[in-house]
Amino acid sequence: MENYIFGKNNVLELLKNSDRNVSKILIMKGIKESGKIDEIIKLSKQKGIVFQFLPKEKFTQYKEYLHQGVIAYVSPVKYIQFEDFLSKEKIYKKIIITDGVEDPHNLGSIIRTAVCAGFDAIIFPSRRNALINATVEKSSQGAVNHIDLIMVNSLSFTIDKLKDNNFWIIATDINAKDNYYDIDYCNMNFAIVMGSEEQGISSTILKKSDFRVKIPILSKFDSLNVANAASIVIYETVKQTIQKSGNVV
Amino acid sequence: MENYIFGKNNVLELLKNSDRNVSKILIMKGIKESGKIDEIIKLSKQKGIVFQFLPKEKFTQYKEYLHQGVIAYVSPVKYIQFEDFLSKEKIYKKIIITDGVEDPHNLGSIIRTAVCAGFDAIIFPSRRNALINATVEKSSQGAVNHIDLIMVNSLSFTIDKLKDNNFWIIATDINAKDNYYDIDYCNMNFAIVMGSEEQGISSTILKKSDFRVKIPILSKFDSLNVANAASIVIYETVKQTIQKSGNVV
Repeated sequence: MENYIFGKNNVLELLKNSDRNVSKILIMKGIKESGKIDEIIKLSKQKGIVFQFLPKEKFTQYKEYLHQGVIAYVSPVKYIQFEDFLSKEKIYKKIIITDGVEDPHNLGSIIRTAVCAGFDAIIFPSRRNALINATVEKSSQGAVNHIDLIMVNSLSFTIDKLKDNNFWIIATDINAKDNYYDIDYCNMNFAIVMGSEEQGISSTILKKSDFRVKIPILSKFDSLNVANAASIVIYETVKQTIQKSGNVV
Repeated sequence: MENYIFGKNNVLELLKNSDRNVSKILIMKGIKESGKIDEIIKLSKQKGIVFQFLPKEKFTQYKEYLHQGVIAYVSPVKYIQFEDFLSKEKIYKKIIITDGVEDPHNLGSIIRTAVCAGFDAIIFPSRRNALINATVEKSSQGAVNHIDLIMVNSLSFTIDKLKDNNFWIIATDINAKDNYYDIDYCNMNFAIVMGSEEQGISSTILKKSDFRVKIPILSKFDSLNVANAASIVIYETVKQTIQKSGNVV
């Protein structure tokens, strides 16, 4: 299930903006030909990609996915090597790190927000965390093609390396004293770490962080979804960036 | 599928904090007895609620839900009448309105954030929007029991009524000029309106709004998930509330 993309928007996004190889596209016979389907067909022709109209029955094997009658077979997403990311030249880099986000919808949703916010990379461990699969791609609405995806074996080692390379590590932690908006995110390289919904960030990573921040809760019900929590912190960085630069976006 | 709650956390939340009637609780035989299961059993005994251990096979009918071996049969969630909500005494009220949020996961997730942020109600139309069902409850992690749920037939009429009652209507709209953080959310009643992912807010509602705000995007990829977008705006109100009051939360 690694190598296909489903859903009208996702397939369209893939054809428009990704350099991944598409081996073929399946379209359900009799599907209501919306503008998007027309565009998918047009782009496939332009790019010389095989597309097939198949009867509804052939799609039952994909029934657990919201394919909307469109599926593309693709080469796997490209992971970037951590070292290659570090060596890229940029004034300041912004990273999101997930430490134990196991729900693929949440991972995809975090990637989606990170891309909208102009982040450069997402780093995630190869164990105890969702990896990039078809569900992540779908939830990201294709955002996985717009950010460096870095899978690492040891998050702890990676964080040491980031610190050596002039990154500030910001951990989100419900027990933190500072609120997420108390940090100045401008004019520095930073990595924001999000932990698992159940256990938060592992203690090793928490100890290595330069800042710990919390999202304040105004009720007794203390239970933000991790993708929503990530969005809140990520967008504080956007707001500060725009306000400091004086740009109206 | 309206009237049960599934998942360990949700059932526990229900037993602890809800006044809904629970007719029975089903627990899967041989389930790993975590602290949470013990607590569910203990609370059921205290409250005189029937609980049954059933073999795994009996749970296949619920297989599309992440029940984790625990299901509670409950009375439906209680909706609040719009007029009753208006007549409640409170200095300032905060509302979230969804206009066409059809994905139950997103609706549940928005409710979850709204409750964490101390919002008083969610208002949604009876058509073209998800209603409160088991998936919404699960995604909300039980937050539906901590906020006034107001279903209305006409959102347009409801917004007129809100304005008559001294509420400011804030619409999120990608074409807005102002950013979401340009509004002063303190010292007023307000309702934030979130539209559908595909079409945004309907034009009638948009016209009636007092403010239109956008979430700025720092890349070419302009596609925030609606629950994440809601979280970003909702938390700007929290931040302003805390900063104005001078309270450290």
